[in-house]
Amino acid sequence: MDALKDRLIEVHALGKAADLLEWDQEVMMPRGGAEARARHLAVLKKTAHEMFVAPDTGRLIEALAPAAEGKDDDESALVRLAAREWRRRSRQPVELVEALTRATALAQEEWFEARKASDFARFRPRLEEIFALKRRQAAALGDFPDPYDAWLEEFEPEMSTARVDGLFAEMKAGLIPLVKAVLAKTASARVPELHGRYEIPAQRRLGLEVARSMGFDFARGRLDESAHPFSSGIAVGDVRLTTRYDERLPFSALYGTMHEAGHGLYDQNCEPALKDTPLTGGATMAVHESQSRMWENQVGRSREFWRRWRGRFVELFPQAAAFSAEDLYRASNRVEASLIRVEADELTYGLHVLIRFELERELLSGRTAVADLPRAWAEKSKAYLGVVPPDDARGVLQDVHWASGLIGYFPTYAVGNMISAQLWNAALAAVPGIPAAIERGDGKPLLGWLVENVHRHGRKFGADELVRRACGAKLTARPYLDYLRAKYGELYGL
Amino acid sequence: MDALKDRLIEVHALGKAADLLEWDQEVMMPRGGAEARARHLAVLKKTAHEMFVAPDTGRLIEALAPAAEGKDDDESALVRLAAREWRRRSRQPVELVEALTRATALAQEEWFEARKASDFARFRPRLEEIFALKRRQAAALGDFPDPYDAWLEEFEPEMSTARVDGLFAEMKAGLIPLVKAVLAKTASARVPELHGRYEIPAQRRLGLEVARSMGFDFARGRLDESAHPFSSGIAVGDVRLTTRYDERLPFSALYGTMHEAGHGLYDQNCEPALKDTPLTGGATMAVHESQSRMWENQVGRSREFWRRWRGRFVELFPQAAAFSAEDLYRASNRVEASLIRVEADELTYGLHVLIRFELERELLSGRTAVADLPRAWAEKSKAYLGVVPPDDARGVLQDVHWASGLIGYFPTYAVGNMISAQLWNAALAAVPGIPAAIERGDGKPLLGWLVENVHRHGRKFGADELVRRACGAKLTARPYLDYLRAKYGELYGL
Repeated sequence: MDALKDRLIEVHALGKAADLLEWDQEVMMPRGGAEARARHLAVLKKTAHEMFVAPDTGRLIEALAPAAEGKDDDESALVRLAAREWRRRSRQPVELVEALTRATALAQEEWFEARKASDFARFRPRLEEIFALKRRQAAALGDFPDPYDAWLEEFEPEMSTARVDGLFAEMKAGLIPLVKAVLAKTASARVPELHGRYEIPAQRRLGLEVARSMGFDFARGRLDESAHPFSSGIAVGDVRLTTRYDERLPFSALYGTMHEAGHGLYDQNCEPALKDTPLTGGATMAVHESQSRMWENQVGRSREFWRRWRGRFVELFPQAAAFSAEDLYRASNRVEASLIRVEADELTYGLHVLIRFELERELLSGRTAVADLPRAWAEKSKAYLGVVPPDDARGVLQDVHWASGLIGYFPTYAVGNMISAQLWNAALAAVPGIPAAIERGDGKPLLGWLVENVHRHGRKFGADELVRRACGAKLTARPYLDYLRAKYGELYGL
Repeated sequence: MDALKDRLIEVHALGKAADLLEWDQEVMMPRGGAEARARHLAVLKKTAHEMFVAPDTGRLIEALAPAAEGKDDDESALVRLAAREWRRRSRQPVELVEALTRATALAQEEWFEARKASDFARFRPRLEEIFALKRRQAAALGDFPDPYDAWLEEFEPEMSTARVDGLFAEMKAGLIPLVKAVLAKTASARVPELHGRYEIPAQRRLGLEVARSMGFDFARGRLDESAHPFSSGIAVGDVRLTTRYDERLPFSALYGTMHEAGHGLYDQNCEPALKDTPLTGGATMAVHESQSRMWENQVGRSREFWRRWRGRFVELFPQAAAFSAEDLYRASNRVEASLIRVEADELTYGLHVLIRFELERELLSGRTAVADLPRAWAEKSKAYLGVVPPDDARGVLQDVHWASGLIGYFPTYAVGNMISAQLWNAALAAVPGIPAAIERGDGKPLLGWLVENVHRHGRKFGADELVRRACGAKLTARPYLDYLRAKYGELYGL
């Protein structure tokens, strides 16, 4: 066990070094460093991969795996995690992994240009190649009830496609009529809007203050700026958030910061005993997203939040002095039938994800060809959101995920939202003082519950198991739909 | 050859990843990240070491070494460099390397506390351990004419202790009487001094403008702040400088920035064909120091420099409006019999180095024991500089080098100064317009000569060979002494 642990800790350390190089690339690196950085990262990842798939690692895992089944101590969880990862890595031929690396590198460049030109035809051959390789990858990973499982497992281990199907069917049935009903009311509803310019240093100060009030520890973390906000947990003592600033959109940086700080709190509060093993960090992508979404939406887009922060907001931005707390609450919850997922409001967000999940499954089954994507995308967008993208850039080309080979990733965004609502209910039931604390600007009571029930476990449990332990109930879409119905029903007078 | 190259490029990439982690640690890392960072760095360095000393690397080197002797093409230089490094690494028992790593980690902590308490006795056992281990290391590295060669080779390959002895004897004979003569005049000389507070954002702006005028390319580099200024060449396209700011000492940040930018220009202008092989970067520590010192002293502390920058200086710092260019020239060349090497002026700097070099050699020969260091230090300081440290903190405890195991490093500082003067003369002879260009704020003519004669060669040549090629003459201390005599003779009216 000690030998396996040592090996895993070494592989983990090289992976974390790579994470730091990637953080630096987005946040600090001069642009002249790109070429060398790509090489240094490739060597680092190849070295970590070779160290992990070395035959002696496999022998250690095989020897330890039988005894680790069904136990929930740290060491057994570590062995199971290593066994899954080992199976995934050792089943993919080196030649396939290299082909995917090359194809996604080229596709990302091509995607960038194609999106700029809003020209899907230009991107199409690259995407066809990626889907062909990803199909080969799924076949190599083998023996799953559904071939999509092979993709999903990378991001959401221990959750089957059948399970996601069930959750999405429930979400779809509830969300489409709710969104339709709200969109019919947006013209008549009173939703104030922020105008003018909001100075970036003041936006940054607000983000820092809010993140600190959530409980984010800046002695063990940073907040910087990057083109696309992200969070990176280098270690429990070194968690890095980024956001981006737009002078005209103060909510964008604020909620971006709260979102990433939600991820960051998860990474900062993992059980110290798990640190620097691969069990550190968040359970799955969906559970991670539940944390970022909860702080961004259930906390940040609440009346309690704005009762606390309205004063500070208008102090930093005197041009917003006419806005009451209620105005800011309403302004931060404006619903729109929008085209772009990353700019979508909380209510319609799930439908953006649904489009992508359904298209990925159709591409896999062959029901839709890559060449048909723009048409299929437009149909679904029309059916679910009532809008048709006027061009490829605002439709099928808007996300980088597919170009990066991140297929099977999108559903975790929506499952994360479902989990956030279910955990939020459980937290409120256990700690009724949470809303009052938020109104005082004190995130600690909520954070305390999350640390105890979610964060400390690191990657020990899958999403279903974690929700069962935290909430004493099975994960469903119901609490998420109830939450949206209550909030937006009241806001839009349904 | 290709197999060896691939291996060396991989080892180099892991080393550069470690460099980035170290840069980040000094410049960006939240303090909570220290523990994990130490582990991640240890794994990265161990992995690079094991990859390098793997038996197949050794076999490749052995097969290629005979044909590489005496040739000056890139590949032969690469093989020679690899062979030297391989010999050094494979001759040191793992147990000794680990003991040195542990001992220096502990010694650095102890040094920090001992310096704070100004208590050499506290540090003494640690230093004894380090010198004992370094003596074992020298024995393991074996077969050098002088045991000090084994230490020197780490920083100044292809230069013998006998050679350094010769250069230092020359320097000592010329410098001690010159320093005495100048110090006798400091009371009567007109040397203005800056007073008051100099705002840090303006200091930073000045540093950026001056570095840019030198030719430092900020699309391939950065300037940040750290406790101790340093420069780190992650790649030719990614060179990072740091400086530190003190509101009362604007020269400290300015010359710190110029010094590090001098190192950085060297790293930015290596022949692109050498990039990402171990031949990239600077020849030796002394040659690197010649570049930082030349920009700091021959350029930055010149009349031409201040004729160009005086206007900007008083624009940024109106409190200095009464200072003429001549005043700033004189103020930046103030000579003092000071105690601290890193704050020493250009004239006395070499004597600070001489003290350390002589003590290292006496410690190695056994003529001085570690326990006697404070007394020996005081004697030499009195003899060479005319001052006696009032306490250990301002004497033997002032530098971290010995605690870090950097023994054999100090002489490169002084040899670097000698080289800077000799290269400077050669540059002026080849490009007479250099001083006029500096007076226009244009570093390009000097940089162009340095790129052609020094930078582009990377690590291909040792210091002696590089000077021979660049200057058509043997490296000596003479040009350095002549330069100091002329400059300080005029300034202090000798």
